[in-house]
Amino acid sequence: MLSSHALSGSTCVVTGGLGFIGSNLVHRLVAEGADVRIIDALVPSHGGARSNVEGLDVEVVVADIGQPEVAEVLDGADLVFNLAGQVSHTASMADPEADLFFNAMSHVRFLEHLRRVQPTARVVHASTRQVYGRAIRLPVDEEHPARPVDVNGVAKLAGEQLHLVYAHAYGMPMTSLRLTNVYGPRQRLSSNELGFLPVFVRTALKGGTIELFGTGDQCRDCLYVDDVVDALITAVSVDAAVGKVFNVGHPTTWPLAEIAAVLVELVANGASTVTRPWPPDHQRIDIGSFETDTHLASSVLGWTAHTDIRSGLAATIDFYREHPWYLSST
Amino acid sequence: MLSSHALSGSTCVVTGGLGFIGSNLVHRLVAEGADVRIIDALVPSHGGARSNVEGLDVEVVVADIGQPEVAEVLDGADLVFNLAGQVSHTASMADPEADLFFNAMSHVRFLEHLRRVQPTARVVHASTRQVYGRAIRLPVDEEHPARPVDVNGVAKLAGEQLHLVYAHAYGMPMTSLRLTNVYGPRQRLSSNELGFLPVFVRTALKGGTIELFGTGDQCRDCLYVDDVVDALITAVSVDAAVGKVFNVGHPTTWPLAEIAAVLVELVANGASTVTRPWPPDHQRIDIGSFETDTHLASSVLGWTAHTDIRSGLAATIDFYREHPWYLSST
Repeated sequence: MLSSHALSGSTCVVTGGLGFIGSNLVHRLVAEGADVRIIDALVPSHGGARSNVEGLDVEVVVADIGQPEVAEVLDGADLVFNLAGQVSHTASMADPEADLFFNAMSHVRFLEHLRRVQPTARVVHASTRQVYGRAIRLPVDEEHPARPVDVNGVAKLAGEQLHLVYAHAYGMPMTSLRLTNVYGPRQRLSSNELGFLPVFVRTALKGGTIELFGTGDQCRDCLYVDDVVDALITAVSVDAAVGKVFNVGHPTTWPLAEIAAVLVELVANGASTVTRPWPPDHQRIDIGSFETDTHLASSVLGWTAHTDIRSGLAATIDFYREHPWYLSST
Repeated sequence: MLSSHALSGSTCVVTGGLGFIGSNLVHRLVAEGADVRIIDALVPSHGGARSNVEGLDVEVVVADIGQPEVAEVLDGADLVFNLAGQVSHTASMADPEADLFFNAMSHVRFLEHLRRVQPTARVVHASTRQVYGRAIRLPVDEEHPARPVDVNGVAKLAGEQLHLVYAHAYGMPMTSLRLTNVYGPRQRLSSNELGFLPVFVRTALKGGTIELFGTGDQCRDCLYVDDVVDALITAVSVDAAVGKVFNVGHPTTWPLAEIAAVLVELVANGASTVTRPWPPDHQRIDIGSFETDTHLASSVLGWTAHTDIRSGLAATIDFYREHPWYLSST
């Protein structure tokens, strides 16, 4: 990972920097002394909020990354963290055109801006393990076929592969990371469309009943957002990462029922769990159990997730109890 | 494959039906007694021409497949052959946004039209072996990672995967075929941007010198367009093909130098071959040798390519000698 010394004084552009992962990254970059420029379209349903970076000395440009004025923001950038996108799987099925626009079309425009004004900037793009779809073998390594089960997975795959094409065809130093389920501070907990983790955390904090579909034995590996921030900063500092895509997941998978049980125990407020039959619209795009092979990231990037789920969830609960407005903000 | 009886009287929509593969398919469908509706945007550089279907009793709607009026054309369709798209790899790098628009964004709009007005229509989509990029193992089967080397490959992959998502999420009967290098009648020979085959055929017919980059020992499997038409019609008639993607290639691969030598021999007009060093812009997006594993298509579809390259090229040369305007038309 880049030392504080290397980040200090560097010019960093963070797209989607007002969102969940982006704003956590911005907090870190500012703490390390970087000069940070945020580009965020603030699309209402995408989860970004100015309050996520409140009090930080950063430049914020409200724009879609495909818009022409973004080129000026990229001028002089050393590091580009390209995290902008639409992240909801269910929203991608309700408005597939918008998802393809935000996750692929805007990115090709963004890459053309970069190629023109700042082709030497070191770039990392945030992709998702959703590109794999249902696993045909576990654990899933980067050579596993990508067969997305929803439009979001298709569009994210296109966005990711566009970055790799620009790396190989133009020698631009690009890397993409396929992130698994990420949780932690500054996630918009009010949405039901961002995967199970924000719903579980919100329900637990409110002392409610966490619903598990089926038996709750589907496994996921969950990443605490600080580990993702480490991975992003590492990805732009390792030369051997250029032109490659890496799985970024946790070495330990957990059944959803156990994750829910840990949350219930940690909040200690009367929250509970219940199992329910699968709603048809969820089951159609569910991918079953998932286990990520992260050997490539550990060998090439020297990165592994450090935070175990119990301490990550404990830190998450502490954060939201100190910042309760995340539970209701839209 | 659907019998003439099954095609006769069926309502078929062919997108890109004025183009190379599309128009050859339309000729077959009309001969079998189908009622054919063509949708073609006639984008000047995409290769479609009304002359390709001259004299046939077909309906032609000039529109991009994403436009709203396309919904009416789909109403009542039994079979949909979705062949529309931008096909040039070099053009995709010069105007990546246009490629993503024509190969992915228009297709998601098209799929939404279909879902609304004719969700039971049997659909086949034309994808490309270009989605694989450089082979990491030969022969390349459908589980080989898809790592396109150009924007065209990324956008075609997105278009193909969108069809599979609609198949799985909505139960719409969709299949996609990854076609290798296709040659035959009604290809726009005047373009240098549609792969090596039209350039080789044009140069040979004109008695010129076919340029081979490097040593000319890169292998390709080449498909005569009639075999592709068979594959497309077969794909919409086999239930087990629904929701799947198939390699559609020739079981025999040939070095480019040998393909050129066969052409030179067949035209018998003084045409010749020469080897040249790789131009950098071609080398950047070249994929080396390629060999397709077509076992899935033969076992599930019962389809294999029948035409050997020598007889395919001979038929191709005969066609263009009878229709010489293809050599110069733009």
